[in-house]
Amino acid sequence: MRVRKRQGAEELLAGHPELVATDGKALRGHWQSVFEKSQPIFVELGSGKGDFICGMAARFPDINFVAIDLQVSVLSYALDKVLAAGLTNVKLLLADGSQLTEFFAQAEVSRLYLNFSDPWPKRRHEKRRLTYKTFLAMYEQILPSAGEVHFKTDNRGLFEYSLVSMSQYGMILQRVQLDLHQEIAFADENIETEYERKFSAKGPIYRLEARFNA
Amino acid sequence: MRVRKRQGAEELLAGHPELVATDGKALRGHWQSVFEKSQPIFVELGSGKGDFICGMAARFPDINFVAIDLQVSVLSYALDKVLAAGLTNVKLLLADGSQLTEFFAQAEVSRLYLNFSDPWPKRRHEKRRLTYKTFLAMYEQILPSAGEVHFKTDNRGLFEYSLVSMSQYGMILQRVQLDLHQEIAFADENIETEYERKFSAKGPIYRLEARFNA
Repeated sequence: MRVRKRQGAEELLAGHPELVATDGKALRGHWQSVFEKSQPIFVELGSGKGDFICGMAARFPDINFVAIDLQVSVLSYALDKVLAAGLTNVKLLLADGSQLTEFFAQAEVSRLYLNFSDPWPKRRHEKRRLTYKTFLAMYEQILPSAGEVHFKTDNRGLFEYSLVSMSQYGMILQRVQLDLHQEIAFADENIETEYERKFSAKGPIYRLEARFNA
Repeated sequence: MRVRKRQGAEELLAGHPELVATDGKALRGHWQSVFEKSQPIFVELGSGKGDFICGMAARFPDINFVAIDLQVSVLSYALDKVLAAGLTNVKLLLADGSQLTEFFAQAEVSRLYLNFSDPWPKRRHEKRRLTYKTFLAMYEQILPSAGEVHFKTDNRGLFEYSLVSMSQYGMILQRVQLDLHQEIAFADENIETEYERKFSAKGPIYRLEARFNA
C-alpha cells in the first residue's frame, strides 16, 4: 500500500520505542522478550495502516502480533491505532520483508499473514511478489514444521499465481475462498483491512490458508 | 448434466457400435485398437452432450478422445455431433465413471478432463464429487506418472473444494484461472461446453490444470 507522506511520521514512531522496533536483527530469537506475555507470535508482512493486525490483536489476546511494513508513513497510522486501542500484544517493525530470516529465528513465528500484497503484475517483477518461491522459502525458515500462511487479496492474477507458486513449492492448501464476502458464515471471522473495506465492492476477495509440507 | 429422456436414444447408440462402446471392461488395455491411428488418449469424464469433446477432437487430430457419460440420452446427443462432424478420433463410452480403473489400464490415458461436474453441494455427498480423493486415486491409476487433470466449472464451492482436495492428495497445480472468460488470451484456446455457453454470463468460470506428483 502506498500512501501520501505523513508530516512528522518518523518522530511519531521514534517516540514509541516500546511499540516500534527498528532493529529487527537484534530481536532475532528474542521476540518474546518485548511482549508482556510469552505466547505464539503471528506476523503480518505488509501490514499497511494496521486495521487487520489491530482487529486480530483485540480479538486474540492470547497471540502476540508483529506488523511489518517498509513505509514510515503507513506504519505511523498503524501506531495510532495500536495506541488508541491500548493493545499490548502488537509490536510494529519498520523493515523490508525480504530480510525476514534476519529478523526471526526458525519457528519463532507461528503463523504468517499476507493481506493485499502488491500484485507486481509485470512478468519481469515476478520475484517481487510475496508469494514467489524465494519468499516462500523464507517463510518456511521462520515458521515451525507445517507452519501456516494465510493470504487474501482482491487481485485475481496474484491469487492465481500464488495458488500455483505455493503448490509448486510443495505447500498444501487447507482452505480456499473465492468470494470471501459472499460467505455469510465467515463474515464474523474475517477481520477486514482498510484496503479491503474500500475495494471489496468492486469484485471478489480471494483467500487461502496453506501450510508447508512437514 | 441431466437432460430430458430422448425417444429412441438407446437405438441410436446401438446403431453405431463403431463409435459407441458399452463394454469398457473388454477394452481395458486395448483402446488404441478401436481408433484409426495410435496416438495419445484424452478422456472426458461426464462428457454431457459432447460439445467439448467434439470441439477438442476437431482441433487436435493427433489425439484420440474418449467421452464417458452415464446417461443414454445425453450420450446420444454427443453421438449426433460426432457423426455430423465425421470425427474419427472420438469414441463414446456409456459407463459409470466410478469404474474407471476397470476400463483403462495404467497409463492408458494421457490426460483427463472434468467439465462442469455435478457439485454435490451437501457435505454428506462429498464422496460423489469427481474430485474427491477416491476419484483422484482412480485418475492416478489410469494416467502416466505426472499425468494431468484439467478441470473447469462455474460452481465456486466445488472449485474451492477441488483445489484443497487435489492439493491434499499431493497433486501439483500447474495453472489456475479464476475468471476464464475474462482472459482474452485464452479465448481462442478454450473449447466451451454447452453448459458453459449457457451459464458463463451468470458468473465466472473457474479452471485448473493439475498433475500428479511423480
